[in-house]
Amino acid sequence: MQLMATKTQLATLFLLLLISATVHGRKPRSRSPCQQYVFYFHDVLFKGYNYKNATSAIVGSPQWGNKTAMAVPYNFGDVVVFDDPITLDNNFHSPPVGRAQGIYLYDQKSTYSAWLGFSFLFNSSDYVGTLNFAGADPLLNKTRDISVIGGTGDFFMARGIATLLTDAFEGDVYFRLRVDIKLYECW
Amino acid sequence: MQLMATKTQLATLFLLLLISATVHGRKPRSRSPCQQYVFYFHDVLFKGYNYKNATSAIVGSPQWGNKTAMAVPYNFGDVVVFDDPITLDNNFHSPPVGRAQGIYLYDQKSTYSAWLGFSFLFNSSDYVGTLNFAGADPLLNKTRDISVIGGTGDFFMARGIATLLTDAFEGDVYFRLRVDIKLYECW
Amino acid sequence: MQLMATKTQLATLFLLLLISATVHGRKPRSRSPCQQYVFYFHDVLFKGYNYKNATSAIVGSPQWGNKTAMAVPYNFGDVVVFDDPITLDNNFHSPPVGRAQGIYLYDQKSTYSAWLGFSFLFNSSDYVGTLNFAGADPLLNKTRDISVIGGTGDFFMARGIATLLTDAFEGDVYFRLRVDIKLYECW
Repeated sequence: MQLMATKTQLATLFLLLLISATVHGRKPRSRSPCQQYVFYFHDVLFKGYNYKNATSAIVGSPQWGNKTAMAVPYNFGDVVVFDDPITLDNNFHSPPVGRAQGIYLYDQKSTYSAWLGFSFLFNSSDYVGTLNFAGADPLLNKTRDISVIGGTGDFFMARGIATLLTDAFEGDVYFRLRVDIKLYECW
Repeated sequence: MQLMATKTQLATLFLLLLISATVHGRKPRSRSPCQQYVFYFHDVLFKGYNYKNATSAIVGSPQWGNKTAMAVPYNFGDVVVFDDPITLDNNFHSPPVGRAQGIYLYDQKSTYSAWLGFSFLFNSSDYVGTLNFAGADPLLNKTRDISVIGGTGDFFMARGIATLLTDAFEGDVYFRLRVDIKLYECW
Repeated sequence: MQLMATKTQLATLFLLLLISATVHGRKPRSRSPCQQYVFYFHDVLFKGYNYKNATSAIVGSPQWGNKTAMAVPYNFGDVVVFDDPITLDNNFHSPPVGRAQGIYLYDQKSTYSAWLGFSFLFNSSDYVGTLNFAGADPLLNKTRDISVIGGTGDFFMARGIATLLTDAFEGDVYFRLRVDIKLYECW
């Protein structure tokens, strides 16, 4: 009987240590997402003539650039503010379920690469809230991972990874990104 | 006796699974904050004549904009760098307890909305350290939630939600934001 | 026997509460890093004549600034896009192990201070993946802490603190930062 109790106590102690280690981030955590979404968003760059249809505009550029055309080469230094519709499929004309809003900037001298800081804003019967993103987007890679750095409303305190895929592009006027969002922290 | 031990073992196993699930983000976590603050910050935009009093300046704008007035309509594409005093009450002349520094950009074509990336810098007897923020600010909503994406010093590794409320504004020259910060991760 | 069982159950309940509190962020978490790195990165600003060697360029400035020289005083309002080599030691000519890409902006009127949003991109035999950073950089402090707000690939879901130290600078043309990265969340 006495021995039995000791065994239980030992097991409890071991359990405590194990959990403590897990909580403190020393043990591998589960890499299976607690929530998953797929969206598309569509970017139409202002080129000087298409104000009405444009969803984004160059707002900063290096000395050798301007506000109506991407800088040569590789757009380096161009800063773009965007207000892009989010859709559930790859059709630009599908009803938007939200807006992707924020900034991207081309930041490589030797190839196409960008840095993104933006949010998804939802206010529909499906979702109310925002998801916030930041990360690097080396455009020529088939897929690129950025960070979900936070969320609000239905996405309260979310963290995760968003995988970007260029689903279509037409020169530097239009591109469409497919975004696979996997959340690994859900509250 | 044997049965008793088995029951204890079963309970322990169940406990282990429960905790494991919680740690891995599958179970709801507490939504009551582990830390809470209220601050105000004050933004005076440079308009071409008020350099001395200005706390912020337009540093990027779309082709149809300029550096001394917001773009029409809805300021879309304007990028602003700011260095705003933080106060404990809503009085612009109260002694600042820190500075709110970073960038905001207007990013909606059809209404007033912005994206924020900034930090609170504290270096006083009350707090030493920084809080880092990112998120969407749809200005016409009474309150807007952004993410606390990290912190340093007294705010080491913080995460949470900051709720913004426009406490006052005068055209596009002055605005004052009330910020309710709720941290849900405290170290 | 009955009493023994009750004691075990009480211990289990206590354990459950303790763990629950820890998971919910109410108890102090370990402040010893689960992963640690030191890197250097090198920034050569475009000044109008050095396009070939430049790794960064002014892309936004206040009304009183321009794209080939920092604004006076304290560079306030200057926005810079950068594509800086990362090295393992403080030698600009060492083989780069990755690129530091993103944006910084000078955001204090009364002294030198900046806000940073950028990523480290690695694609070598040592590391594949990205680390994402955001935070305030009050340049005149010997060391400055910013947040690691996320990571991908080998740095999947990372969070932590990066401590910046200005290892060298030459006017506003060149600076070298030493970055001590400490991760406190490892997956």
